[in-house]
Amino acid sequence: MSERPNRQILLAERPTGKLEESHFKLIDSTIGDPGPGELLVRTVLVSIDPANRAWMQGRTYREQLGAGEVMAGGALCEVIAANGAPIAEGTVVWGEPGWQEFAIVPANRVLPVAVRGPLSHHMSVLGITGLTAYFGMLNVGQPRSDETVVVSAAAGATGSLAGQIARIQGARVVGVTGSDDKNRLVERDLGFDATVNHRSEKLRDDLAAACPNGIDVYFDNVGGRVLEAVLPLMRTHGRIVCCGAVSQYDSATPAPGPAGVPGQLIVKRLRMEGFLVSDFMGEWAKAQEELAAWVAAGELKALEDVLEGLESAPRALIGILAGDNVGKRMVRVAPDPA
Amino acid sequence: MSERPNRQILLAERPTGKLEESHFKLIDSTIGDPGPGELLVRTVLVSIDPANRAWMQGRTYREQLGAGEVMAGGALCEVIAANGAPIAEGTVVWGEPGWQEFAIVPANRVLPVAVRGPLSHHMSVLGITGLTAYFGMLNVGQPRSDETVVVSAAAGATGSLAGQIARIQGARVVGVTGSDDKNRLVERDLGFDATVNHRSEKLRDDLAAACPNGIDVYFDNVGGRVLEAVLPLMRTHGRIVCCGAVSQYDSATPAPGPAGVPGQLIVKRLRMEGFLVSDFMGEWAKAQEELAAWVAAGELKALEDVLEGLESAPRALIGILAGDNVGKRMVRVAPDPA
Repeated sequence: MSERPNRQILLAERPTGKLEESHFKLIDSTIGDPGPGELLVRTVLVSIDPANRAWMQGRTYREQLGAGEVMAGGALCEVIAANGAPIAEGTVVWGEPGWQEFAIVPANRVLPVAVRGPLSHHMSVLGITGLTAYFGMLNVGQPRSDETVVVSAAAGATGSLAGQIARIQGARVVGVTGSDDKNRLVERDLGFDATVNHRSEKLRDDLAAACPNGIDVYFDNVGGRVLEAVLPLMRTHGRIVCCGAVSQYDSATPAPGPAGVPGQLIVKRLRMEGFLVSDFMGEWAKAQEELAAWVAAGELKALEDVLEGLESAPRALIGILAGDNVGKRMVRVAPDPA
Repeated sequence: MSERPNRQILLAERPTGKLEESHFKLIDSTIGDPGPGELLVRTVLVSIDPANRAWMQGRTYREQLGAGEVMAGGALCEVIAANGAPIAEGTVVWGEPGWQEFAIVPANRVLPVAVRGPLSHHMSVLGITGLTAYFGMLNVGQPRSDETVVVSAAAGATGSLAGQIARIQGARVVGVTGSDDKNRLVERDLGFDATVNHRSEKLRDDLAAACPNGIDVYFDNVGGRVLEAVLPLMRTHGRIVCCGAVSQYDSATPAPGPAGVPGQLIVKRLRMEGFLVSDFMGEWAKAQEELAAWVAAGELKALEDVLEGLESAPRALIGILAGDNVGKRMVRVAPDPA
């Protein structure tokens, strides 16, 4: 029996309005040995996602987070000790330790990672983010080479990959971000055909100009105002891939949906479909092969946005809700295992 | 060259708020002979649908209706004279004469009807209404026998058939209407398993009680408040068939969509899909065979709601927007051809 020092970030208070640093609390604690069937893991890279905020808002695909709990979050971890579980020490696993330096987790709740290259790639292009972009675009959106695809949060973790994957399929790809700098980046570095700034007062006109033939597929990461501007431009039999609604996460309750839902869906026979990457788990390995091959061929670029130290996690999450990040945001808690 | 007396109802003024009789004008006029490739038809039964109101609101799958035009509408008609078109006099056709006793229409814009039984059946169960219920429920909703299906406007033209078709598939069917009388009717006469009154102040609780296992398929004819109440009860991978949004038609512009769109779609991986029956035109004949067989076997009942005389059309339309109808509403302008 041993106790080792640990640092944890708690959700001190459930936010009712905008998330602030004061809603979190960093505490020193200790952690003991794993029980039977459990692992002691060291957190290496914590994933920072808008969904973290949605978990505070209510029940989603997981229970609502409560005050006083260790802040929940997925992470890449190194196995320090395994109690009766067939996982070697030193193995890198994807799990849910939450925001803490060490955690004890059930062995059957982690996924071993076959590491190739830097660990951060398993957080971005080969991780949940890349898989989300892959299945959302290819299985739900199904763009054809003669079609126009719009991606919101195009400089974000998922959007930056989703747009590139549509481009690889030969589609015309239009990105929506909240800054001209980001727009330059996705056009120049990621090969998007055009971009629109969602802070424009004439968002709908800008979108129409960027999509002269209308929109066949909309990969929606944000919901709200951008979705409302996109709807009238959708072409008959278009597909709206509901991947995220980040514009709605940072409040107590979601706002009414865009005007024209469901009217626009009927008139244009649109399909609006939500999905979670976990539904495609059986095909993850195959998808990772293809993603890795695109990266190796230089066709797909991983944008990564790494903050240092566990204590930066609250700031990292608050910033991502304001659109501060470029690419996949994560917090480094420990160096990559040797 | 001959002129015959005609009566027409014009859209005198485009409504900005609720539709009223004063927005229409009945006029006496005359009608001449059909030109080459045209037909002179006598209107027999005019279809009255909530969509008539949506056409005034803006561009849909047809141009927006303008003031001074003959009110648009589909109807079953008898061919009186054909000028160079291969259609015999006396043939019954489905066309778009609008609200008038006689009309001249292009011969290539009508569909001949193989009449079986009363003409009204070709307006209800064998007509656009029945086909809409058929393809919307079976091709878009795809209910399974162990699933719960909710249908709004369940005593309406489409809903009354859509619910019965789901029941024929073995699903548990819950109807939503705006009156207890209608609810008794659809339970007793149409075999719905349960019903809910959408005017209830505890609509969501009533729905939850009627759907203890949640909702797998929602056949949505109304949008708005009922859709908002249904969303939280949808089961994972549920389907929302967007057939109509009648709650939103009787105003100048549609209201914001239900809260939780797209958030709820993501969390539960819902598919929300609009459709128009015209997309399935190649399969209409096959569907009519099956619908007729169900009627013959007593499994499917056609509710019909017939008003007499062209002059009752404005009142018929205003009433349908308030939910006055039970079953398929139509206006009889002439007797069935012998």
